[in-house]
Amino acid sequence: MDFCILIQKERMTVNIMIENTEKNRYIFGIDIGGTACKLGLFHEDGTLLEKWQIPTDRANGGMNVFTDLAAAVDSKLEEKSINREDVIGIGAGVPASISGEGVVQKCPALGWSNFNVADKITEVIGFPAVCGNDANLAASGEAWKGANHSYSDVVFVTLGTGVGGGIICNGKILQGAHGCSGELGHIKVNPAETREDGCGGHGCLQQYASATGIANLAEEALTARGDEAKGTYLYGRIKVNAKNVFDGAKKGDEICLDVVDKFGEILGRALAGICVVFDPEVVIIGGGVSAAGDILIDAVRKHYVEWAFPPCADMEFRLASLGNDAGIYGCAKMVIDELTEL
Amino acid sequence: MDFCILIQKERMTVNIMIENTEKNRYIFGIDIGGTACKLGLFHEDGTLLEKWQIPTDRANGGMNVFTDLAAAVDSKLEEKSINREDVIGIGAGVPASISGEGVVQKCPALGWSNFNVADKITEVIGFPAVCGNDANLAASGEAWKGANHSYSDVVFVTLGTGVGGGIICNGKILQGAHGCSGELGHIKVNPAETREDGCGGHGCLQQYASATGIANLAEEALTARGDEAKGTYLYGRIKVNAKNVFDGAKKGDEICLDVVDKFGEILGRALAGICVVFDPEVVIIGGGVSAAGDILIDAVRKHYVEWAFPPCADMEFRLASLGNDAGIYGCAKMVIDELTEL
Repeated sequence: MDFCILIQKERMTVNIMIENTEKNRYIFGIDIGGTACKLGLFHEDGTLLEKWQIPTDRANGGMNVFTDLAAAVDSKLEEKSINREDVIGIGAGVPASISGEGVVQKCPALGWSNFNVADKITEVIGFPAVCGNDANLAASGEAWKGANHSYSDVVFVTLGTGVGGGIICNGKILQGAHGCSGELGHIKVNPAETREDGCGGHGCLQQYASATGIANLAEEALTARGDEAKGTYLYGRIKVNAKNVFDGAKKGDEICLDVVDKFGEILGRALAGICVVFDPEVVIIGGGVSAAGDILIDAVRKHYVEWAFPPCADMEFRLASLGNDAGIYGCAKMVIDELTEL
Repeated sequence: MDFCILIQKERMTVNIMIENTEKNRYIFGIDIGGTACKLGLFHEDGTLLEKWQIPTDRANGGMNVFTDLAAAVDSKLEEKSINREDVIGIGAGVPASISGEGVVQKCPALGWSNFNVADKITEVIGFPAVCGNDANLAASGEAWKGANHSYSDVVFVTLGTGVGGGIICNGKILQGAHGCSGELGHIKVNPAETREDGCGGHGCLQQYASATGIANLAEEALTARGDEAKGTYLYGRIKVNAKNVFDGAKKGDEICLDVVDKFGEILGRALAGICVVFDPEVVIIGGGVSAAGDILIDAVRKHYVEWAFPPCADMEFRLASLGNDAGIYGCAKMVIDELTEL
């Protein structure tokens, strides 16, 4: 309920509307992925009230996603007895480069091309919408709500199937003039590499520091040792993965320790370069591989310090703490920043 | 002369002061270097009215600089019949890392340590002062007034004795949490390098892309060719410098062309990495070496494109156009941004 104050002085009357701050307003944060969409219902103060996920149906040119999301949102509103007019809007993350207006040129994971995602969400679900790149939004979510600490200048690196990232500058996502800021997986760390990366280049950071990259480093280490590798932690596995490598290192396996050190050297040295371009308060490392924990941070920090420009050698390193929720937090923050007047 | 408007309505009287916009106010931009201080007198609208320089006297723990600058400023004010109250303030650039408050920890070029340069300028010269790093201010000056075009997101690289740089983000200098943003000369481009850089690291970009670095690349190329180098452009020179290399390349000398290409490869590949961290509208290349002109930009762009992440492969490259004046322009902009209300 809103109320009014009337101020009467001399013969002038001033009418001031004050919004009742007791009123609850809500935000949906939706992280649209190739296999699942993660949804979060947030209070306007940024509190996550509930989260859940639905499978991504890529049929119908990726258009079913929107009707499925509309059904999910409507059913949550009904379940919670929330009026539609109390929803501020929807923030959505997509696994693609996206313009400030919400236009995606190409999004192979969803089958979209050259199309305005924000307009489509508003059309089908019926709320104001803002969209962004999923890795950037995860960076923003971590900077905002991660690790029990709010940061305004962050380099965020995600180690998953590939290596992604996001730069937070003055509390805002740095988009870049061509939408490429924070595409850290494509820094060239080995000009001599002959294998091609997904981007068409070669020697990209993600060819070594992603889950796939770490598995490759391990395979190479096993091959290089030949018979000496017999009986070691990784030997004889049909397919080595990044988790095996970190598990083995925690058990003291020498080959695994070497691979973790090699990974730390490549990522630490790349970060030493990244941090003289954009010098953040903190480097946050997330993504599936970061589940390895402190052993990973320690390996990266050790080599970062060795290669860092001295004035920023004392950099803070942290593991991401929101896990898969980072994206929906970033989506909610984007709605707060862009659709509400603070 | 300021004037007043009186508004009388009902029984309420409003008194509005309007500043006379005809009034001229002035700014001094001072680029303090180890051998000379460059001074600029600017109109508050950013027009450079006059520029000159005085030698840097490093005696007396670097304190003579301030009395010399005070004398230079006072004599210019007298010459131009400018009242002291019409000076908004002084912007000064120093060849060191400097805090937002104007504190320099260490500035070997001037012999200063742990001292507030802005306070000292105000104390000795008598005007409000703001200070910044000289390379960052040159970046800001170029972004603001260079190349007949104003840019808001710029990567600026200076190729001089070393390699410096500055990042302009949303029209402002990116300082970084440890004052290290834009220290592009310290990106590690060759982990196998055994020679040590001035920063204590090895394999830094400036070991190859500075004037000194280019001369080293040329010496190596001459040595590698042995007798085959006889009669070529660089052969027999007592000391090869970067200018010789570019001059020889312009004349078609094969060794010089190879060295320019090698330089372009190292800097172009480094810039491909820089531009996926901070993705600018334009890369501007300045510093003494940039006097080589288009041949330099062409060599860098050729290799940038080869190594760039495809969405930002179509990057704009420009030569700096303000030369030695970039710094004083950046100083004036800093005063406009920080000491005037726009």
